[in-house]
Amino acid sequence: TPFILTVHILGVAAAILVLIWSISYRGGLNWNAVNKNLVFNIHPVLMVIGFIFVSSEAILVYKSVPGSKVYRKGVHLSLQAVALGLGIFGICAAFKYHNESKIDNLYSLHSWLGLGTIILFAIQWIAGFVTFWYPGAAANTRRSVLPWHVFLGIFIYVLAIASAQTGVLEKVTFLQTSKVFGHYDNEAYIANFTALAVLLLGVFTVLGAVI
Amino acid sequence: TPFILTVHILGVAAAILVLIWSISYRGGLNWNAVNKNLVFNIHPVLMVIGFIFVSSEAILVYKSVPGSKVYRKGVHLSLQAVALGLGIFGICAAFKYHNESKIDNLYSLHSWLGLGTIILFAIQWIAGFVTFWYPGAAANTRRSVLPWHVFLGIFIYVLAIASAQTGVLEKVTFLQTSKVFGHYDNEAYIANFTALAVLLLGVFTVLGAVI
Ligand code: HEM
Ligand code: HEM
Ligand code: HEM
Ligand code: HEM
Ligand SMILES: O=C1O[C@H]([C@@H](O)CO)C(O)=C1O
Repeated sequence: TPFILTVHILGVAAAILVLIWSISYRGGLNWNAVNKNLVFNIHPVLMVIGFIFVSSEAILVYKSVPGSKVYRKGVHLSLQAVALGLGIFGICAAFKYHNESKIDNLYSLHSWLGLGTIILFAIQWIAGFVTFWYPGAAANTRRSVLPWHVFLGIFIYVLAIASAQTGVLEKVTFLQTSKVFGHYDNEAYIANFTALAVLLLGVFTVLGAVI
Repeated sequence: TPFILTVHILGVAAAILVLIWSISYRGGLNWNAVNKNLVFNIHPVLMVIGFIFVSSEAILVYKSVPGSKVYRKGVHLSLQAVALGLGIFGICAAFKYHNESKIDNLYSLHSWLGLGTIILFAIQWIAGFVTFWYPGAAANTRRSVLPWHVFLGIFIYVLAIASAQTGVLEKVTFLQTSKVFGHYDNEAYIANFTALAVLLLGVFTVLGAVI
């Protein structure tokens, strides 16, 4: 399907944009930095590339990867596990940054949406695993669960996209209200285009899944 | 369907929350106020109640309103027209506030998502009108266009929900960075719960439409 190539391209575009933003404009990524902003920068990179990009590719595996049904299922569940792991790691980076900078945890709408997303994602993964892989449900149970797996999977994925939109908006608003850059400066466009690339990635991934 | 009642309740809850926030905490609504914050307050109220709540009810008309097909179609298109009109009016309030307070226009991710949403919504309305109402397409054209009308209608509606999430987050971030209220103060919960009520309203409206 034509959406697969579009998803690959938009995923790479979102990845490049978030890297340019974090590395060229925000000073780079460093888990152990004294400058805690470099600890923070790990967060958007892992959420956009590790979580959303990988999960987008995982969703489309059944349409993009050749091979047997069981092989593609294995790739789908493995990639979703990678996305979950990198997503959790990315959230840990946000908490580490908050704790080491003495900033409150879990006060913002973004943090609530983000935490809700990753919890639902973990539940969805476990439910998918026990139903479709091991131990695996009876054939007719699988058949009736599958539409829910697809619907809820898309719903949680859309929630991840919305979380990323609020995250980018929040970071840009912090930086602009503290006069780090202006409303129409290059960095504002790089950051907002990162969010728009993630949004379009989401649109085409959902289109690819349902069509 | 059980989702209809849930949608009514969540819509009323979101409406009450945005009114409490705007009136009790933010000082009320006034198009001609000298205090420009009261001009701004018209924006969230019209976007949540006038645009999103009305559009949610419009989407579910075919499942919630009894009567002939043509009658429900008339209610659907009329309510969507009301939502579009109040949405445009609500955006005018945001521009009026910006202009009279000498704040830049259209610099934020929220404003881009919001403007994109309302433009797509207007196009969707016109396309729906000419296809299904007047002059109306041939029967087989209608049949093939309908799944796209539903899919794109839901997509644009989800974009409206995402725009509202970013809008609430942006306003709360402005108020918290300028120390109007703290991270864990009542107003923060009222505002964030408004956003969550809108999100749940969106989830159940989409569920109601597809199931
Ligand atoms: C699906 C993607 C994302 C998820 C699940 C997510 C999740 C989270 C969570 C749970 C926190 C709270 C950390 C704490 O309270 O200590 C957080 C904080 C933060 N995130 Fe994200 N995030 C995502 C994407 C992004 C992106 C793309 C950005 C862009 C810069 C971002 C910016 C922030 C900021 C500025 C904070 C600190 C302020 C706050 O707590 O709201 N996030 N994120
Ligand atoms: C949070 C993790 C997961 C998410 C978000 C997710 C999401 C999705 C989505 C959106 C689809 C529809 C794909 C399409 O229409 O092309 C799908 C299909 C499927 N998923 Fe998952 N999934 C997850 C985890 C798992 C796991 C762990 C398994 C275990 C094997 C699994 C098994 C399946 C199966 C069997 C299909 C149906 C493939 C088909 O025959 O069309 N999923 N998943
Ligand atoms: C679907 C719903 C919404 C749409 C379509 C929308 C659209 C817009 C647009 C187009 C602007 C730009 C005005 C300008 O540049 O002069 C704007 C500004 C604004 N809106 Fe919304 N809005 C929505 C909901 C909300 C909500 C619920 C809030 C909550 C308070 C909100 C808060 C703001 C704020 C703070 C601004 C000014 C800062 C900025 O330009 O980003 N919006 N909105
Ligand atoms: C921006 C405005 C509009 C949006 C967002 C929208 C959205 C939707 C959605 C989501 C559905 C699916 C409802 C369901 O599954 O229960 C639907 C159905 C429908 N809409 Fe619209 N719509 C809009 C405007 C219009 C207009 C102007 C017309 C003109 C008559 C129209 C005609 C229809 C028809 C005929 C159906 C199919 C009803 C059925 O037989 O199930 N829509 N619309
Ligand atoms: O005008 C309409 O077109 C569709 C359908 O007839 C297409 O098959 C529908 O439900 C209408 O009310």
